Amino acid sequence: MPVLVVGSIAYDSIETPFGKISEAAGGSALYFCAAASFFSPVNVVAVVGEDFDQSILNFLKQRDVNFDGMSVKSGKTFRWGGKYLTDMNVRETHFTDLNVFEDFNPEIPHVYKTCTSLFLANIDPDLQLQVLDSVKNPQLVIMDTMNYWIGTKAKSLERVINRCDVLILNDEETRELTGNNNLITAGRQILKMGPSHLIIKKGEHGALLLNNKFVFAAPAYPTEKVVDPTGAGDTFAGGVVGYLSRKNKINLNDLRKSILYGTTLASFTVEDFSFRKLETVTQKDIDARYKKLLKMISLV
Amino acid sequence: MPVLVVGSIAYDSIETPFGKISEAAGGSALYFCAAASFFSPVNVVAVVGEDFDQSILNFLKQRDVNFDGMSVKSGKTFRWGGKYLTDMNVRETHFTDLNVFEDFNPEIPHVYKTCTSLFLANIDPDLQLQVLDSVKNPQLVIMDTMNYWIGTKAKSLERVINRCDVLILNDEETRELTGNNNLITAGRQILKMGPSHLIIKKGEHGALLLNNKFVFAAPAYPTEKVVDPTGAGDTFAGGVVGYLSRKNKINLNDLRKSILYGTTLASFTVEDFSFRKLETVTQKDIDARYKKLLKMISLV
Repeated sequence: MPVLVVGSIAYDSIETPFGKISEAAGGSALYFCAAASFFSPVNVVAVVGEDFDQSILNFLKQRDVNFDGMSVKSGKTFRWGGKYLTDMNVRETHFTDLNVFEDFNPEIPHVYKTCTSLFLANIDPDLQLQVLDSVKNPQLVIMDTMNYWIGTKAKSLERVINRCDVLILNDEETRELTGNNNLITAGRQILKMGPSHLIIKKGEHGALLLNNKFVFAAPAYPTEKVVDPTGAGDTFAGGVVGYLSRKNKINLNDLRKSILYGTTLASFTVEDFSFRKLETVTQKDIDARYKKLLKMISLV
Repeated sequence: MPVLVVGSIAYDSIETPFGKISEAAGGSALYFCAAASFFSPVNVVAVVGEDFDQSILNFLKQRDVNFDGMSVKSGKTFRWGGKYLTDMNVRETHFTDLNVFEDFNPEIPHVYKTCTSLFLANIDPDLQLQVLDSVKNPQLVIMDTMNYWIGTKAKSLERVINRCDVLILNDEETRELTGNNNLITAGRQILKMGPSHLIIKKGEHGALLLNNKFVFAAPAYPTEKVVDPTGAGDTFAGGVVGYLSRKNKINLNDLRKSILYGTTLASFTVEDFSFRKLETVTQKDIDARYKKLLKMISLV
């Protein structure tokens, strides 16, 4: 079944110890669908400015990603600039120019409204609620957010969290949302807010999947080549949601596997700037690395 | 077969967000044997001062730990004082009084010399070499070290590393020893120095096991109760070496399992100050938690 994603499309200018790029396509919605499209068709709701060069979308369109819900507004596309330090876990933001994204008002095309899997990427929680209200009968709602919304729109954020099935946060956000430093204790607290499952992303340290009774711990794929971590989290989400969107009824093992697929996809993203790697990677590459990852966590 | 450990015995004064203790027994050798003794008899080589209250050793003696190689010297026992901040990954050292440990000269009792499994805890690499020279026919040499020796005794350290089978480092030490930030690349570089396997400890993020062709990634046991992380690394090593000491020939699956046992044991240590938890935990508790850990990393 097609997946619906609502998120950002941006031009990123990024410097890492391995080089730099200027005005390369990025944004949560694009990284998400570059991954999710390996599993299911994807419908995108986003906004770009008149300056956006749509040719970058070609490889996604070939993978059955539908951009009818992407509106082109007068003005410039969202731009972000930043730098990763030698320790790639630390990044500096140089600028955030919201441009047309500032007045983003997600309009869901009629044909999208029957999508049963929905990913709410990191946008204003009030907009996330608006999207939730306009989708008819979502079977699986997965969402992301960021510390900015935890600080400024806590009430709205709580309302979306209450209505989602799976919440994806990173470790810092998990601690910030609860004021608790222990990830497991903090995670259990968040589960009381409504979602049946929480996924805690820990960057190079992998991810945890929690429900009230259960923890699954997955490492990151230990790649030797980390060129640019931008988009890794949204790619991960794309793998998770994409994999789950193909299941009629989701069990714990599906959730575990979805995390390993998310991990696999994200490990490709970080190996080059922007979509360079996700553009060329094949289903065969993904399956081979997934198997290697599985071997890395298994006893024989 | 009995395990030989050479390391420190100390009095620790520790403050954490959950309380504090003053002059509680600690040190790498004791944490190590509190864990390893669940698998094999352990022979300890260490030094204490006349002020050391040997009654703390009773629970270890009952588990077949032999202290004939522990010398009592005139003077005071090694003392360390420190504080863990809210983020328990960060600690401040308040004082390090080496006392009798400053002139530690490991003397290996004759009956110890036939031990086939040897753990060289974090001590001066020249002393580690001296111990290696005096043990007849070690089948399995596992060692630890710290950034201090990387900075001050690089040449001696390289010589010990070259002669060990399994080197255990934490993530920071791995980076510092190689000047490389990527743990996998750094790990492969270290393997060229001689050891057949490297274990990289990542604290709450688990551990990696590497050889030239292979990576195994294990999470930490996601405990909700972290009271005092002191000794976790040496407990982990005790579980690893203890488990391996029972095998005649070690294969990769034994190594994987040893890491999961080390992880399990360490998760008990951090739940209380000093040896409080390791004193009371039973083989049954350990096996139960090991099974839970195994479940956390497995697909069904």
